[in-house]
Amino acid sequence: MVAANEEVRDGVRKRCAAAGMAAALLVAATLLSVAPARAADPLPSWNDGAAKRAILAFVAETTSNGGPGFVPPAERVATFDNDGTLWAEQPMYFQLAFAIDRVKALAPEHPEWKQKQPFKAVLAGDVKGALAGGEPAIAQLIAATHPGMTVDEFRKIVEDWVATARHPRFNRPYTECVYQPMLEVLAHLRANGFKTYIVSGGGAEFMRAWAEKVYGIPPEQVIGSTGVTQFEMRPTGPVLMREPKVEFVDDKAGKPVGINRFIGRRPVFAFGNSDGDQQMLEWTAAGKGARFLGLVHHDDAEREWAYDRTSNIGKLDKAWDEAVAKNWTVVSMKDDWKTIFPPASEP
Amino acid sequence: MVAANEEVRDGVRKRCAAAGMAAALLVAATLLSVAPARAADPLPSWNDGAAKRAILAFVAETTSNGGPGFVPPAERVATFDNDGTLWAEQPMYFQLAFAIDRVKALAPEHPEWKQKQPFKAVLAGDVKGALAGGEPAIAQLIAATHPGMTVDEFRKIVEDWVATARHPRFNRPYTECVYQPMLEVLAHLRANGFKTYIVSGGGAEFMRAWAEKVYGIPPEQVIGSTGVTQFEMRPTGPVLMREPKVEFVDDKAGKPVGINRFIGRRPVFAFGNSDGDQQMLEWTAAGKGARFLGLVHHDDAEREWAYDRTSNIGKLDKAWDEAVAKNWTVVSMKDDWKTIFPPASEP
Repeated sequence: MVAANEEVRDGVRKRCAAAGMAAALLVAATLLSVAPARAADPLPSWNDGAAKRAILAFVAETTSNGGPGFVPPAERVATFDNDGTLWAEQPMYFQLAFAIDRVKALAPEHPEWKQKQPFKAVLAGDVKGALAGGEPAIAQLIAATHPGMTVDEFRKIVEDWVATARHPRFNRPYTECVYQPMLEVLAHLRANGFKTYIVSGGGAEFMRAWAEKVYGIPPEQVIGSTGVTQFEMRPTGPVLMREPKVEFVDDKAGKPVGINRFIGRRPVFAFGNSDGDQQMLEWTAAGKGARFLGLVHHDDAEREWAYDRTSNIGKLDKAWDEAVAKNWTVVSMKDDWKTIFPPASEP
Repeated sequence: MVAANEEVRDGVRKRCAAAGMAAALLVAATLLSVAPARAADPLPSWNDGAAKRAILAFVAETTSNGGPGFVPPAERVATFDNDGTLWAEQPMYFQLAFAIDRVKALAPEHPEWKQKQPFKAVLAGDVKGALAGGEPAIAQLIAATHPGMTVDEFRKIVEDWVATARHPRFNRPYTECVYQPMLEVLAHLRANGFKTYIVSGGGAEFMRAWAEKVYGIPPEQVIGSTGVTQFEMRPTGPVLMREPKVEFVDDKAGKPVGINRFIGRRPVFAFGNSDGDQQMLEWTAAGKGARFLGLVHHDDAEREWAYDRTSNIGKLDKAWDEAVAKNWTVVSMKDDWKTIFPPASEP
């Protein structure tokens, strides 16, 4: 009887130990969210091809503890261009659409704009004419609409704009003209311990107003072009004023500079879509160890746009040649992406 | 016999279920590290007083879910000055000691320094004479030693210096002349979901070379003064060159500017020690909700130094008046801190 009970106890104890371990592992898996992330396809909007396989292989390699490509969590830095890489950039940079809408809104306070280009053309609805002035015209539109207010006031204006403005072709908020396949890459990287950064020629404070909500990227991980700001103590308290002076252009050779200034580490993963991203990719590629370098190629006129070597916006020429020569990943929007944009949030 | 076995099985099963739960909770506690952090005194080097109580109360209030002072984890931003707040700044800023050591090391390549101030005085061992030239002399010493190399080369030089240089009074590495009570504050904040940042007038790249090891603060959370850097493509690959041009001075009114540029959110907690931190504290204080504003007062000539309103280094005058008027926390090094520095790492 004693012996029999001992035997029963032993058997139960073994199963009991197994059950205890299972419970512990279940809690561990739930807390770490490891098991579910690996079980499903983390990139469902990507067709099975070289690009998708390269992304998945890089993440698997860099997170495989003890493996030759392992990257410690603190060094898992991934940088993404924004315009043309995370969201669309046609028929014009979305921030320029914002500036044009601001010119229209501010026109009553600026009667002189009726006689002055590029404002005159904007107010006549002739955007093409306004932009015929090239970079200087664009700079004028930005300078007339971005400074002269506090950083908090600017943020509020951007928030209101993204909540109401609609993309002319897709008739949905600009913040929904983001690439679903890239949202999945961001999420997959973060689920594997990567810090995801935006490194964009666009305005840092323009992007920070919505990047956390749209991409899950917090303001401190948004690197972009900046204007000078000035601290002022007012009777109502301190403010930071946006001055009409460019401080930093986070484009081309400015991208590695911005990365070094803000992150202070070299990325192991970088994704862009144009020659403006070439130096970021070169800087990333030049580090030791496993690397992922990616370029989105806009070759899908039907679902989005097709443009590359001769485009005024998002020109992809030299960076493309370098990508081919160095075996970086070039994503064909047409062939690699099952869908372009996320489902619409409204009917 | 069957009944008896059933009874035994039931008893074991109950204990087994309890054991499984215990195992699960143990794993959960280990993974979240919550229980141990709350159980012990998180600030053992602080005497029980108003300053310690204010820090603990702030953390408890801001992390109390559902409470009136609750701050969501994403917004738990804490900023710390470095010189005089996290580590000592006497008899001179440690980065200046670095510049002086570099002048000595580089002297063979600069025979002209023998006839030129402030270098001549430095090389004659007359640091006081060298610094008699004030800010311009200091700027010359920095300009002669900090630029003209890649960011990677500079980092290596700083790493080598902190590994070998010794503080003249305490005869231990400068990186051990850090304040043990403040290390505990950093750790307590991080254990409660805060992101800890350095916001210092010191050089960002100088601090980044050791801040992670010494404070647990990663490079991307180190905000400081910067020089211009330039991307260059060399035959051996891309480099970032440090140019002889100041880009940004992260001091006084520059601190809120730097905070906005790098973090893009207003801190809820800020700690400094001098008038150079006043605007950072004002900017932090002006936000809505629970706030902690702290100043370290150096009033301990025996264990460290005593200086405030009339000091050339770390002058604490106007910020002190504002702290008293607004009920910010002023820490008395003498009365609030049981110990100043951590135990020595070497005999």
